[in-house]
Formats: sequence, structure tokens, C-alpha cells
Amino acid sequence: MNANVPRDGLQLRSLVKDSGELELSLARVATPEPAADEVVLRVEGTPINPADIGLLFGAADLATLAVSGSGERTVATARIPDAAMKAMAGRLGQSMPVGNEGAGTVIAAGSGAAAQALLGKTVAVLGGAMYSQFRTVKVELCLPLPAGTSAAEGASCFVNPLTALGMTETMRREGHKALVHTAAASNLGQMLNRICIADGIGLVNIVRKPEQEKLLRDLGARHVCNATSPTFLDELTEALVATGATIAFDAIGGGKLAGQILSCMEAAINRTAKEYSRYGSSVHKQVYIYGGLDMAPTEFVRNFGMAWGMGGWLLFPFLQKIGAAEAQKLRARVAAELKTTFASHYSKAISLAEALRLDTIAAYNKRATGEKFLIAPNQDAAAPTKN
Amino acid sequence: MNANVPRDGLQLRSLVKDSGELELSLARVATPEPAADEVVLRVEGTPINPADIGLLFGAADLATLAVSGSGERTVATARIPDAAMKAMAGRLGQSMPVGNEGAGTVIAAGSGAAAQALLGKTVAVLGGAMYSQFRTVKVELCLPLPAGTSAAEGASCFVNPLTALGMTETMRREGHKALVHTAAASNLGQMLNRICIADGIGLVNIVRKPEQEKLLRDLGARHVCNATSPTFLDELTEALVATGATIAFDAIGGGKLAGQILSCMEAAINRTAKEYSRYGSSVHKQVYIYGGLDMAPTEFVRNFGMAWGMGGWLLFPFLQKIGAAEAQKLRARVAAELKTTFASHYSKAISLAEALRLDTIAAYNKRATGEKFLIAPNQDAAAPTKN
Repeated sequence: MNANVPRDGLQLRSLVKDSGELELSLARVATPEPAADEVVLRVEGTPINPADIGLLFGAADLATLAVSGSGERTVATARIPDAAMKAMAGRLGQSMPVGNEGAGTVIAAGSGAAAQALLGKTVAVLGGAMYSQFRTVKVELCLPLPAGTSAAEGASCFVNPLTALGMTETMRREGHKALVHTAAASNLGQMLNRICIADGIGLVNIVRKPEQEKLLRDLGARHVCNATSPTFLDELTEALVATGATIAFDAIGGGKLAGQILSCMEAAINRTAKEYSRYGSSVHKQVYIYGGLDMAPTEFVRNFGMAWGMGGWLLFPFLQKIGAAEAQKLRARVAAELKTTFASHYSKAISLAEALRLDTIAAYNKRATGEKFLIAPNQDAAAPTKN
Repeated sequence: MNANVPRDGLQLRSLVKDSGELELSLARVATPEPAADEVVLRVEGTPINPADIGLLFGAADLATLAVSGSGERTVATARIPDAAMKAMAGRLGQSMPVGNEGAGTVIAAGSGAAAQALLGKTVAVLGGAMYSQFRTVKVELCLPLPAGTSAAEGASCFVNPLTALGMTETMRREGHKALVHTAAASNLGQMLNRICIADGIGLVNIVRKPEQEKLLRDLGARHVCNATSPTFLDELTEALVATGATIAFDAIGGGKLAGQILSCMEAAINRTAKEYSRYGSSVHKQVYIYGGLDMAPTEFVRNFGMAWGMGGWLLFPFLQKIGAAEAQKLRARVAAELKTTFASHYSKAISLAEALRLDTIAAYNKRATGEKFLIAPNQDAAAPTKN
């Protein structure tokens, strides 16, 4: 028994019941003793990313959200529409932990040298179940943060940074020279903008609000198009001509935007076409949908020839595809530029219990640009019981 | 001067004028003298494929179709809606010949040995501008037909056969083991069905009419789903479970079908899923849209996880990708099985002038299954003037 291992701690859980009820609650779970190659992390910062929101709420109708209890006994419930229950079949009755990534202090370590070396260090972990006060994890999942980096600063050092790098990397690997990004004023979008400026890559940023345009221009973005502008398609086409972008990463998914991007790419390419082809240009145009800010159906008019593709893009399969060595290079860059290129900003830090409050859920579920929440699981918790 | 070269012949032309008028007419064009590596073909059969219809009519509104004149002076006109003129920009003012493929007799040959060897032979040609009485083409574009094969039998030996083989080849190359095909009772679909039976490949045929179901079942198809059935999605899912198909080729393009195929593939895969993943199955699901029988927008609900792709598929880029040697293997198979696996059926043979008649255009433009037209450019033409 390791005297530094807390006996138990709170962990946020999401459960879909057979009845069609979604229940979010805090479970008190025992902290596993670390094996030789494991450490125990006191989680100090873990972000609420869009992918986490997907797991938290599943297909629930948030108009039916109700919250009871308080503190550690806070319970939030919502109804899942019958039509959506089919998609939930795989998780029925399983009380699921949530939280892709986070950072904190190593408060106990297994007997192995690598584990012992991390004792007392601030590390970031991409390990799942991070909406917990304590996590026992393998050493290999830990990224030691550079000296002087706080857990809050390192909490988001995997998902957004690696996704942004994954976009420029995918662009290069698939033979494109510039790219388009939607919902471009997000934390992720700002990172991508910084990467593209640093690496000299043409980037077309698509946003929906004047203040987002300004924000990105103030950050040095050269091409910013507002999708709500009456001349949006013309502006987008001009930016595509200027950059030569033929690949896009779309966080929105629903509606007409993904198809409009392909149409404008085709129009941009045809500006310089030498002869008519009934099949459209032979230049491959690609849109990857990596998020679902709009869950409405995707709709497009096929006026962009035959050389096009649309598809899902996800970080983990991408990292698997490029292999461990290449993925490690990306991680090393993130660690080195954590306070600059890959800096994240949070509008609020909340406790686990606060993450289940009506007003907080309403706020982070908007997924509004600039509204990003950090959970600090040990923020206002009672001191954990020691073994 | 080669005495066997006809001075001129009729050629069908499609012209989009600045005014927004589409004009189809017959031009009398001089027959070029064959170079050493060329032959002159008397075109005896050339099919009206969907791709040809696209070039013939562009974006014209066929409700406005009007025909004047007769015989060689027949002219068909139609209006192109203003909104569609942008897509026509590349072909404005160009009188374009039409007709991807065809077959006929070599009536004159250049001085080269390879050209001379074809003299008098029946050959098939994938050369464009085949809606012509005579075509001077490179020897390398000619596929000599096996003895006893008529021009009508060989007229469609490129586009449909190579497209069908391209589908099973793409399936293999992209790591799938069975495939789905829509508009499956077409000439192409029947070929694909014969290929899959011969090669032991699982094929899910999607049709829209009971008589098409029967036709395919009578041809030995095991999985035939009618998209108009109230239980279509369940039936499709069962067929996908049975075959393991994770790639589809869709001739329709518009509407919800392409997305429904992805959704049912995901449901079929999840039948055997071991644990819940918020991102859906990790099995890549692909739909290639290779035609546009429905020009309406494509619409889909993204309920099939993140491992999916949709995109255009076109024969010529596919052949380029696999390279000349592999393409030649496919052509050799077509020649060997032209009267069996790759047999085409036509509902009618028509002259060039008939191809411009209102009733004929209405008939072939329906693109109805079983309604396939063959143009016989020399069928009722006056004897050409000799040089």
C-alpha cells in the first residue's frame, strides 16, 4: 500500500438508461494502487472539448434537462428522444467516465524507475476518464510539462494541438498546399492560424461573426471569410484563388457549408482552366468533417465535377496511421510551444459538481467561440481521505 | 490522298451560346487523311451513355426543347436557365462533338504496318466524337473485336465494361470484400452482377421497381433491395450483414440514398461491435458517386460515425491511377467476354438525325433502365462522297 494514494475520489459519470433517460452524476470511485509502470495523478485541469460533450450528453434533448441535489450529490437528467435511442444501443446501462485529456500533479508512483522519476512533476495525460479527482495511469500516457508550466496551461495539450497539427500534416500528405478551416475563431482555429503563420501555409478561415473576423485578423490571419455575408461565396472563391487551398477541415458538418467549400474550390480552379471538361476539373478537392457543431443533415449540390471527396476525420486514427515516431514529433512540438502556438484560453474554471449545474451546462453546451470551460476536479473538494 | 477516305461526313454537335441557348445540330465535317499511325473508321454503332447525355444537353431545361428542320438539317434547341449558365462557362461558343465510344469498320488506313493491319477489320474505339459517320483515329485507340463480333455488339465495350470492372477492382484495392450498387438493373448493373457471380464477390443490388428486382434475381443476383419498399433500410442492413459490403457505387447521387447506405453499413457493422465508441465503428465505409441520375442535392444525416467517405468516381482517372499494364488486363478480359459477361442490350438503333428528334430525345433522356439507345450514324445516310 502506497501511503500517498488517496482512497477514493469523485468521478463524473454519464449513463443512458433503457428507459431513455440520460443521467449525469458524480461517483465516488476507489483509486487503484499504481503498478510498477503507473502513477497516480491528482487531476488539476481537464477541458470540456466538443468530443467530451458528445459523450456527456449523447443524443439527449437538453430542453428536458433537470438538475437535483447539490455538491457531490448533484444529478442532472435529460430525455433521449425515442428515435435517437437506436444510436445509443452500444452504451445502454453503462455508467461511463468522461474527459479525454487533462493535467495535474503526480502524487504517487509505482516502483519502476520511469514512474518514480515523475513523482511530484506536473504532467499532461491523454487517458480518458479525466473528469476525475484522481487517475492511476501508465507512465507512457504522461507527457511531463516543461518547468514553469501549470496544470491549467497543460490541460489541453493533446486534443486541440494535435488536431491542428494533424490538419496541416494531412494537407501535406495528401498533396495539397493550403487549407480551409471552419469555426475558425475557436481555440483550435487560433492554434491552426498560429501554425500556418509560423509554417508559411495558406489558410482560409471561415467564421460567422464580425468579432470573430476581427479576432483572427488581429492575430495575423490574412484570409477570413464570414459565412453570413451576402457575398460569402465570392469572398471564399477569391481566398481560394489566392491561397490555392483544395482541402478543408469542417467542424460544423451540418447544412450547406461543406458543399459550398467544394463548389468554390472548383470555381477557383476553373478560373485558370484551359479547356472545358464535362467532368469538371481533374484537381481533387477534399472536405474533412471533424466535428458536429451543427447536427442537421449535410446537404450539397454536386456542381464541383467528379474529383472530390468528403469524409470523416478523427485524431486517433490519424495518429495511428502516421505511426508512433511521427506522432512523437508532433507531441514534442506541442510541448516546446505550449505557451505560444498551442496556448489555450478558458472562460471559466469549474468544479466537477458545477459541471452538472443547469447554468453551467447551458453555457458550455453552446460551444460558443471564446466560451471554453476547464474543470478543476480538486478545486473546492473536501480533502480526500488517505489510505 | 487515300481513295478510300470519304471526303466528309455528318457529325453531331452540341453548342451552348452566350444567349443561354443550347443547340444540337449535325455538321458536315471533312474526314482527315490518316497519318501513318491512324485509321479511318466508318462508325456503325455508338451508344448513348449517361455521360454522353450530360455533354449533349449540359444544364438545359428540356421542357423548352424545340426541334426544327429534318434529316441532315435537323436542329434541336433548348434554354439553359440563367442560374446554370455559370457552370457552362467553360464550353460557351464551342461547337462540341459528342460520343465517348463506338465501333465500326476500318475503311482506310495510314501507311504504318499497324494501321494497315486493321484495314477491313471491325474495331471498337474509345476516342470521343463518335457520334460521327467517320472518324480518323490513332491505331492505339482501336480494340480489334474478336472474329464474329458485330459493330453493334462491340459498340459499348469500353465505358460500361471497364466501369464495372473498375468497381470490383477499386473494392479490392481499397480493402473491401463486397460492394453495393445502385440503379443496379442497368446495363452496367447487369454486367457488374455477372462479374460478381463469376468472381465470387458479394454484391448488394439496389433498385426501385419490382420488375427490376425480378430481372436481377432471374440473372442470379442473391441480394436485391428495393429502395421504395417501406422496409428498405432493414432489408439493406440485412444484405450488408450477409455480404460484409463496406463500399458502394452510386449512380444516382441526389437525395438521401448515398447517406442511407452509409448509415446501414454502420448499423450492420455494429451488430457485432464489442464495445461502445462515441465515434462510431472504426471500419471505413465508402460511397462513390459515379453518376447523376438524380441531379437534386445530396443529403445525409451523419449517424455513421467518423470513419466514412463519400466522393466522385470516374473511369478515366481510375485507369490512369492503375497504369497502362493493369488497364490492358481489364480490356483483354472485356474482349474475351464481350458476348457473355459484357453483353449490352439496346432498345433501339437510331440515325444521327433521329437522335435530334423530340420523341427520341424524350425517350433516351429518361435514362430508364432497359431503355438504351444505339446510334448507327451510317444507318440511313446517303452514300458519302468519295474524294
